[in-house]
Parts: sequence; structure tokens; C-alpha cells
Amino acid sequence: MTTVTALAGRIPVTRLTPAVPDPRWHPKAFEGEVVPFRATVFREGHDRVGAMLVINGPSGVEQRHRMAPLAPGTDRWEALVRLDETGEWRWHVTGFDDEIATWRHDAGVKIDAGVDVELMYEVGARLVERAAAETDRPRAVRKRLTALAGALRDGEASPADRRALVDAPVLAEFDARPLARLSTDSPEQRLLVERRRAGVGSWYEFFPRSEGAKRQKDGTWKSGTFRTAQKRLDGVAAMGFDVVYLPPIHPIGVTNRKGPNNTLDPGPGDPGSPWAIGGPQKDGSAGGHDAVHPDLGTLADFRAFVRRANQLGIEVALDLALQASPDHPWVAEHPEWFTVLPDGTIRFAENPPKKYQDIYPVNFDDDPQGIFDEVLRIVRHWMKQGVRIFRVDNPHTKPLAFWERLIGAVIADDPGVVFLAEAFTRPAMMQALAMAGFQQSYSYFTWRNTKAELEEFLTQVSQETADFMRPNLFVNTPDILTEYLQFGGPAAFTVRATIAATAAPLWGVYSGFELFESVARPGAEEAIDNEKYEYKPRDFAAAEAEGRSLALYLGILNRIRAEHPALGQLRNIRFHASDDDSVLVYSKHLDGRFTPDGEDDTLIVVANVDPHSVRETTVHLDLEAIGLEAGARFEVDDLVTGSRWEWGPSNYVRLDAFTRPAHILHVRRGSDA
Amino acid sequence: MTTVTALAGRIPVTRLTPAVPDPRWHPKAFEGEVVPFRATVFREGHDRVGAMLVINGPSGVEQRHRMAPLAPGTDRWEALVRLDETGEWRWHVTGFDDEIATWRHDAGVKIDAGVDVELMYEVGARLVERAAAETDRPRAVRKRLTALAGALRDGEASPADRRALVDAPVLAEFDARPLARLSTDSPEQRLLVERRRAGVGSWYEFFPRSEGAKRQKDGTWKSGTFRTAQKRLDGVAAMGFDVVYLPPIHPIGVTNRKGPNNTLDPGPGDPGSPWAIGGPQKDGSAGGHDAVHPDLGTLADFRAFVRRANQLGIEVALDLALQASPDHPWVAEHPEWFTVLPDGTIRFAENPPKKYQDIYPVNFDDDPQGIFDEVLRIVRHWMKQGVRIFRVDNPHTKPLAFWERLIGAVIADDPGVVFLAEAFTRPAMMQALAMAGFQQSYSYFTWRNTKAELEEFLTQVSQETADFMRPNLFVNTPDILTEYLQFGGPAAFTVRATIAATAAPLWGVYSGFELFESVARPGAEEAIDNEKYEYKPRDFAAAEAEGRSLALYLGILNRIRAEHPALGQLRNIRFHASDDDSVLVYSKHLDGRFTPDGEDDTLIVVANVDPHSVRETTVHLDLEAIGLEAGARFEVDDLVTGSRWEWGPSNYVRLDAFTRPAHILHVRRGSDA
Repeated sequence: MTTVTALAGRIPVTRLTPAVPDPRWHPKAFEGEVVPFRATVFREGHDRVGAMLVINGPSGVEQRHRMAPLAPGTDRWEALVRLDETGEWRWHVTGFDDEIATWRHDAGVKIDAGVDVELMYEVGARLVERAAAETDRPRAVRKRLTALAGALRDGEASPADRRALVDAPVLAEFDARPLARLSTDSPEQRLLVERRRAGVGSWYEFFPRSEGAKRQKDGTWKSGTFRTAQKRLDGVAAMGFDVVYLPPIHPIGVTNRKGPNNTLDPGPGDPGSPWAIGGPQKDGSAGGHDAVHPDLGTLADFRAFVRRANQLGIEVALDLALQASPDHPWVAEHPEWFTVLPDGTIRFAENPPKKYQDIYPVNFDDDPQGIFDEVLRIVRHWMKQGVRIFRVDNPHTKPLAFWERLIGAVIADDPGVVFLAEAFTRPAMMQALAMAGFQQSYSYFTWRNTKAELEEFLTQVSQETADFMRPNLFVNTPDILTEYLQFGGPAAFTVRATIAATAAPLWGVYSGFELFESVARPGAEEAIDNEKYEYKPRDFAAAEAEGRSLALYLGILNRIRAEHPALGQLRNIRFHASDDDSVLVYSKHLDGRFTPDGEDDTLIVVANVDPHSVRETTVHLDLEAIGLEAGARFEVDDLVTGSRWEWGPSNYVRLDAFTRPAHILHVRRGSDA
Repeated sequence: MTTVTALAGRIPVTRLTPAVPDPRWHPKAFEGEVVPFRATVFREGHDRVGAMLVINGPSGVEQRHRMAPLAPGTDRWEALVRLDETGEWRWHVTGFDDEIATWRHDAGVKIDAGVDVELMYEVGARLVERAAAETDRPRAVRKRLTALAGALRDGEASPADRRALVDAPVLAEFDARPLARLSTDSPEQRLLVERRRAGVGSWYEFFPRSEGAKRQKDGTWKSGTFRTAQKRLDGVAAMGFDVVYLPPIHPIGVTNRKGPNNTLDPGPGDPGSPWAIGGPQKDGSAGGHDAVHPDLGTLADFRAFVRRANQLGIEVALDLALQASPDHPWVAEHPEWFTVLPDGTIRFAENPPKKYQDIYPVNFDDDPQGIFDEVLRIVRHWMKQGVRIFRVDNPHTKPLAFWERLIGAVIADDPGVVFLAEAFTRPAMMQALAMAGFQQSYSYFTWRNTKAELEEFLTQVSQETADFMRPNLFVNTPDILTEYLQFGGPAAFTVRATIAATAAPLWGVYSGFELFESVARPGAEEAIDNEKYEYKPRDFAAAEAEGRSLALYLGILNRIRAEHPALGQLRNIRFHASDDDSVLVYSKHLDGRFTPDGEDDTLIVVANVDPHSVRETTVHLDLEAIGLEAGARFEVDDLVTGSRWEWGPSNYVRLDAFTRPAHILHVRRGSDA
């Protein structure tokens, strides 16, 4: 530990980000993400430093970006780069002695003060001569630099003309290619860029067995199938969703099957929970994670469902729930994949003293290689059917190392496969799952409903953890119907959808949300007559016709998302003030350097998060945070209603929970006076 | 990057601290420091984890400490360890599946609920049998475990007796030596423990030339010498200081010497600034950093000064100021150690357009090895004279890597050498100097005067940066006389000394503070007629006799520091509430496990930081933070006045700036009822 050679470079470069809290893993981004690369770069004394980001894409193309200083006193430097190629990027930061900047500063001050005038011109002349001698600079530039050296030495020139040379245009040459004498490269950093769908998507979840399910004359149900469910895809596409996530589609256990509302005494026609995986197939044999529930049809029917979805621009995501009903083929064939108790029985899932007797949890320790191989086989099986997205059920109840290994093996085959972690658990595990491989994570969003909660939550997911964790803002799930939705009426649904769709590039909706389904099982935070245990066909068309549907609005939200690249970014959210504790204000801003049309894209969302009131208040914008000048006035378009207003630093808003609880405004560029 | 083998262990262990922000360097502690070792340890599912700190001292002795969980939900675990051996420690954390804890929890709940009763006893019996089979457990323990297994299986026992076995005393065996099936060792960590003086000390700074300086009849001055200055050491020792820091003791330049109050036209008798190093010696030759100013005496006199100090329990710290007057021998012999300008002159220190013509800054880049060798030679020269502490002047104006290399080379010879960084600069450089080797750092303390500022500052230095940076809380310096002291009167001096001496284990005073010297040079933040440019003999005895001195109080502060081990720790400060924005309240608490007498040592400091008022308010203590029960009542002794009060959760205080602006209270143990 007694270092006699220094670990610090000549120009210290430290604290590089993107970074992850545990250095075993590396940060990640998604295709098209605009990533802030930052480092702390400083030196001794008063001379100027510069910082250059050197970044190499997977195909080997090197980019160099001059970094700009952040807040004074922090010694933090930043360059924003849009990463347009998937794969592993490598980068480092070079800190250097910026002799040109030091000279321009010192010469300017000293010449104006009449101190060392000739000396400062001579120092400058020698600097630009040194640059002119660098043969890898363009010939024309070198000629101009040589000429500048001569002019700097020209004591006959007028003092004003000569003084102007300190700011000569050719000196801009050094912005891109500095004259660096002392420089230090940071250690090389790595960054994995995943496919765009890993970071941007609109998810819709539905149970295929419900779509087309019919109650028979005898009172029993006929299950929906992939063929009938396929018809629902048009409606989903019309709402603009681009991922359809299906709960498990496998045979369901019969032993200890759950009845309606999680009861323990099902009727003969009750379909059971799809998460109780493993049950009889058509031929009576037991089918598991690689099988399709016989009521839903065949594997060919599933493939047809996937094809139809793809035609509509939708990807299909499957559930990966590593647990087994007592009827799963694993139970007989591989008891070593479960925990066998001293009495010879297999241990049920439990939360002592409660037991969940329809499910056996998997034991990952008694035959780790065997269970790993089997799960990898299952994932590859579904990949062969066209599935590249998996929503993983409760990954936090399985070993972290198992997921790291599994996802590593899968993306070695196909780097575009995406895993969404449903880990509603403590931050340590949630974050570790993301660091170790999961591309997306469910989040605490459903439980963050007040303005203060949302500001804190969204700041955390967009700033503090964005280098490694991407939140998918589901507004509801079969397991989660929050009190906010239970008691907030349509305004609550509208506001939550607005925020989820605009605050982050990943959001999700579970079917029935658009119908304002809000009745919970008493004492529970989930819907009554839960679809997990029952068929639940819904008449979306009738609801729309009768004005009892949010489907049209969800479609508008997804259209706005598609049209505004600022919404395809995670890190660009900034909060603005309002004078009302229930009026949340945030912007999403993307500089024109990074948009397809070269124009800045700026949205301002103003939402009344109290679903029971009308709020009138003033919104105070930090205009510089959205690329406008302090004090600017400009026009905004309401992207939902088409209204247009003139806005400025402070703006009156009125948000009526009962009619229009949120604005999504787009700043018209060129409109600022 | 596609990991097919997992980097996560079976039981994830992440985010280990102590740690430094830049992983090139390692954290450090000082001898006797009680260090919180922490890690995030978690696992999948509901089963219990445990965490064990395994720590190896430099002499190879391994300690194992069971870690305790911190705040619920954080998955953070901690063990506090006092490090009593200097040198490099190595440590790691083992996370493990705590089967015994899981069983005790599950069995307790399930047996009480009448679920799986026999099964749970059998599971427990098998666990303790497994432990009993481990041959490295003591024989007696193994016998007791075997007996327990039998008892657990004894269906004839009374249900209550059998149920009690789940909490059988022998199970405490597993606290120290768990029954661990799945476990993971974190990567090995390193921690450098430096000698105690690196982290604990009371510094006193004085100019030896002032002590014993006399104005002659002709109006000129006769300089003080090491021999006359030596007499001051008794006074310093009486105040309880244990480090005396001397400004540079080398010959002072004549060329462009500064006059009184930093003027440019000194009189013939003006002594010049000791930081303008390099000037004539007695024989007329030029002396530099290895020479003693002829007015101060000889090298032998210096050694005698050091010896006398050591006899009084005081170490002598020298200044290391790497700059040269134009008369320094380096200038003629090694112009390559300076910056030579195009006109052939050597560049002065400057802040354009201002120049400091009494000093040439060193150039570390033109002959880096030469200047390094020279500075190392100088440091070793003073080490040979008995110096093991260096106060480094403006290290932030020299390359970070230079210091890293220099300190590395010095501590390779003598790990006990301490360097204090006088880097009043931005956080990036300050922190990097500490990470790269400096054992102590001046801090922003002098500019943190309000209650809110002090709470933020002290929290930062004691919590956020304590793994690598140790603040030395100087109350003043020859360069710093804050407005708070200029205008706060004696109360300001009393309060600042109280806080500096008790809030951190390193503090410092520059001579004259005890005399309430408070007149600044107009427009400057430093004393008028600054001792940097003049002789300034002080009559400490007369001031004390006339009651115009804080010397007695400084002595009390240092006595309290010596008597209370809680004050010898940096990280143990906790803030408590008061109802007054100017009444600062903090405690320093050290558990009896870590004190010499085995008793908890707890101090409560209450300070009125408004030096112009009398404040009456209520102080609200977080009693659990200081090892007391919520709601406890207990006695406190005022360590300054000897008063005793009964205190509890909320306490009235009256702090009169004009008589007694602060309390230092000690909690009497055993007094809590």
C-alpha cells in the first residue's frame, strides 16, 4: 500500500459516470439513449484544464467529444452523446493541460492591464507555432496558425488589432483538437448498449383465456383461445401499445387449485391461477413450462398469435414464473429441484404460518446445474417461437446469481432478448437484479401518488439509478389496484396514465384499466373477482361507445410518445415549481442535436394529482432547463386538446379533476420572442 | 460482457465500507479508531441471512465479528471494531444462509400456530445434529447440541418445555460460529491504519522568531531564537497542546521582500515572510529548505527545541512550502525547477494580472525526477532532526501525483510520518489529496459559523468523507481571521474553541487566539500587522493575570479531550434538536466496549453560536443515539464548571454569550433511573 509510484495521473480524472454502485458490473444504456458522460477533472494551481471524452462503439468507430464544465466549483465535466449502436462501448476521459485556454485568459487580462504585453504575445506565438508544427493538423489550419504567430509578434500592428488576436477565430481549432502538453487518460470504462425495446416501450397485459371466453348455457365457461385472443390485438394496436405481455400460458395445476377470489375450494369449472404452472394436457400427460394450456390451443396457434402481433407492430412478452404446481412434470421427474422435507413431502411456498398449497417453489441449490439447464432450455424454446421479451415473476425469490447466469447465457445467443424483473422488494435486491442483467424493472410507481412522492421517485429513477436500472411504470397489475385508483374515480386513472406515459420511456397497463375497474377485494389491494382465478371477458367496444372508456386517451398518450423523441429518454426529466402542493409540473427536453428533425423537442406536463378537486395555480418554469432564455415568452400546444397558449416564466393553470386533470404541452420552437 | 458465469455470489454482498470514491485508492483509519464496517447483504426469498466481518490485522491475527442489521429495509449490516494496530489491514464480509435463524423464526411461528409442529422440531433436530457433527466446535458444545436434538424430538415432553427449546441458550453458540450452508465471501478489502497522531491531536502554531523578540533601543528588532522560543513550550504544554507547528524556519529572501502588512517596500529591519524561502545565511551563502534561518540559531538549537518539546509531550511539526525566493540556491543551481519565460526570466507566482514577486513557484514538469529527489531529500533531512509531522503549504498548487509519490516514499521509510494538507480549495482536489496520501486536511471549518452550517459541515466530515479525509479544525491561522472572530468578541473565541476541540479529534490554534486578537487589516480576512511580515512578541502572562486570556479555558478543553475517549473519535458525532436556531447541540458517544475503563463515555455539547445574545431554549435529545433508553432521566456533569444537573429527553438551557456560551456535559453512567 506504500505507493512510491503515483496512481494519480498528471491531470487527475476521477469519478467517471455512467457507473454502477458495485464495480463488479457495468452500466448500460439503450439504443438511441442520450447519455451524460461525466468525470471530475482538475489540476493544481490556476492554469486551465480541458476534458475530452473518447468513446468507441462496438463496430470500432471512435468518437471524440470535448466535455463542458458543469456547475462552478464542482470540477465536473460532461459530454452528452446519443448511442445509436447496440453492443459493448468502451470509453475513457482524457484530462489535459489546456495551454491555449490558459494563455487566452492570462494574455487577455495582462494585456488589458498593460502587464507583460510583449511577453504574452510571444508566449502565444510560441504556442500556436507548436500547434502549426503538428503534422496531423490540416495543412490549411497549420498555415493559418503560422500566420497567427507572425501577427502576434507584429509590434507594428495597432494595439486593438493585435489584442483581437487573442480571440482569433482559428483558435476554435483547439476546441476539437487541443494543444495538450500534459494529459492523463482515465482507466477504460465499459457501457453496454441494449436494443431500443429494452428501454422504450408501451406495454399492455391481458389474459388470453379471457378474450373470447363465453359462459355456456349450463353456466360453465368456455375458455378464450389464442385464436379468439388474437382479435383483441387490433384494439391493443389501436391504443398504440407495442408490447403485449401474457400471463403464463402453460397448463395449470389441478391439485389445490385456487378458486375465485383466492379461495381454497374451487368449483369444477374454475380455471385456476396461470401462475400455478404444470397440469394436464389434452392427452392427459402433465405439461410444464414448455407446454401450452390445452384450452388456449396449440403451439402453432401461439405462433400465429405472435405473427399477428408482429404484423401490428407489437412484440409478445411471455411470463417466466419459476415455480410448479404439484402436477408439474418436474415434481415426479426431478424432486431434487424442490425442497424435500424430513417427512418426505415437498415444501410448499409459504410465509409462515401461511402456506400456498397450489405452488412448490423451486430449490436452486440441490441441483443448480440441472435446474439452470432446464430453465435455459425453456427460455430457448420460447425464443424459437418468436419470443424475445420475458416478464420474470418474483425474481427476488430466486438467487441473484441464477439470473445473472441465465440472462448472460441468453444474451450470448441473442443480445436483444429483454427481461423485465417483477421484483417488488427492497432496494438492494431490486437494484442488484438490474445490475446483474435485467433490462427493465417494475418499480414503486404505483405507490407514489402525491406530488412530493412523485418528484422524489422520478428523480431517483431518472438520475440516481438510471445508469443501470430502467423502471417500467405499470399503472396497475393483476396484483395491484391501489387505493388511489380504488377511490380516485376516472380522474385518478387519467392522471396516472398521463404521468406513466410521459415521465419515463417504459410504461404499462393491465387490461381493465381503460374501463376504470376500481373495485377491490375487501381488505386487499387487488381487484375483486380477480382475473387470476376467473375468466373475465370485457366488452371494450360497448364501453367506448358509452363513453366509459379511457382507450381513446391511452391511444393519444401513445401517439404523443411516438411523435416526441423527448419522451423516449429516461434521464431528461426536470421538475418545475407550482404554487399548489397537488399540481405536479415536469418537463422532458431533448436538444435538437439529438432529434430526427434537428429541432429541440420540449414537453411540459402539468398534472393535478388530487383526483377530487379543481386546482387553479401558477406554474413557475425553469426556462434554461428546457433550452429557453430566462424570461422568454413562447407558445405551447396542448397535445391532447389542440389548444394553444402563450406561456412564459410564470403561468396560470386550471386543472379540473373531473374534466381534464392534466396538460401535456409542447413548446413551439421559433415562437419565443 | 456476456457473463455466463455469475459475478454475484450465492448470497450477494455488495457496497462495502469503509471505501473511497475513487477505487484506485484505499480507505484509512487511525490507531484506536472505532470503525464501522458495513456491507449490503441480502438473499432471495424470506429465509434469513447473516453477515460476518472477517478482519486480519497487520500482524496476521484474524478477528471475526458478527454483523448486526442497520435500519430495516436497507439490508445494511454493521460491525464496529476498534483498530489498535498500525499498518495494512485486510478484511472481507461473508454473507451466509442463516439456517438456524430461519428455523427459529419459522418454528416459533408455526408451532405457536399448530402448523407442522413435529416437522419443525425434526428440522431443528437435524440442524443442530449437523452442527454437533462439526469437529471444530468445542466438545462441550457438541454434546449440548446433541442433547438438544434429542430433546427437540422428545414428543413426551410438555409442549411448553419443548417449545422453549426453540430459544435454547446453547443456540447462542451460532452467533459466534454460524451453521452456514450457503455462503459468499466479498472481495478482499484493504484499510490502512495510521498512527494515532495522524487522527488525534491538539495543534498550536507559533512563530519562533516572535518568542523572545525584542525591540532594541535604536528601534530595530532583535529576533527571537529557538532558545528563546523554547521557553514558550511550557505555556503551550500547560494549555495541553501536543503538537507545535512552526512556520518555515529557513533563511528568508531579500529580493522583493515584503514589508509590514504585505507592502512592497520593507524597511531594512523588516524580517520578511518565512514563506519566501531561501536567503542569506551567516556566512553569506544562500540557504534553502534544508537550512535554518541564521537569526533563529543553529540546527543544533533546533534539535534542542525538538527535544524540549518532546520532553513536554509535544511533537514539532514543520512547514513544507515548495516555493523559492529569488535568493534560493535552487534558482542559480536548478533553473529547470522553475518556469523560464521566453524573455529568459523566471516566472513569479501570479494571479493575472497580479504578481507575487517575492516568490517563484516550482515547476514540477521540466525535471520531475530532479525536483522529487530534492524534496524527498529535504523531508528526510528534517526527519533526521526528529520531525515526523509536516504541514504542507498549498499542496493544491502542486501536482497531486507529486504528493502521492512523495508521501508514498516517506511512509515506506517511516509509516508514522504525518502530512497535513493546507488545501483551501474546491472539494475535488481537497478530497483527492486526502485519498492520495495526506493524513490530515485543513477544512472549511473557519467559514462554518451558524448552527445549520456547522451541522452540515460536521456531518459531512464525520460521515461522508471520514473513510479517507480527517479534518483538522483550526480556529484561526495567520491567513484567516474570520468576520465571526473579528466582530464576535470573547464569546466568539470561546464558542469556536469549544466546538473545534470537541467536535473532531484534531483541532488547532494559532498563537494570539487566546488573547482574542481580532483586529483585521482593513478589507482583508487576516490580522492587521500580520506576524507573517513582522515580529510579534506577546505577553501571555500579563494577559492571563489581567483576565484577558482564554489560555486557561483552552487548557480545560484539552484536559477534557485527554480524559474522554469519546472525543478521540471522528465518526461518533450526532446532532440533537433544540428549539433555537442558534443553539447547536451534539453528542459524542463511545460504547463501553471501546473505552479503557469499560464504561460508556458520552458527552453532550450545547453551544450558543450567536456571540451577541443570551439564549434560553429547550434541548431535545435522541437518547437512544447515546446509549440511553428513550425517556431516561440521568445526571450530567458540566465538565467546565463542575455543576451537576438532572437531564432527560428535553432540557432547559440558558447560554449567555457574555459569560458562558457553551456547556460541555458528561453523562454520569449509572445515574439513569
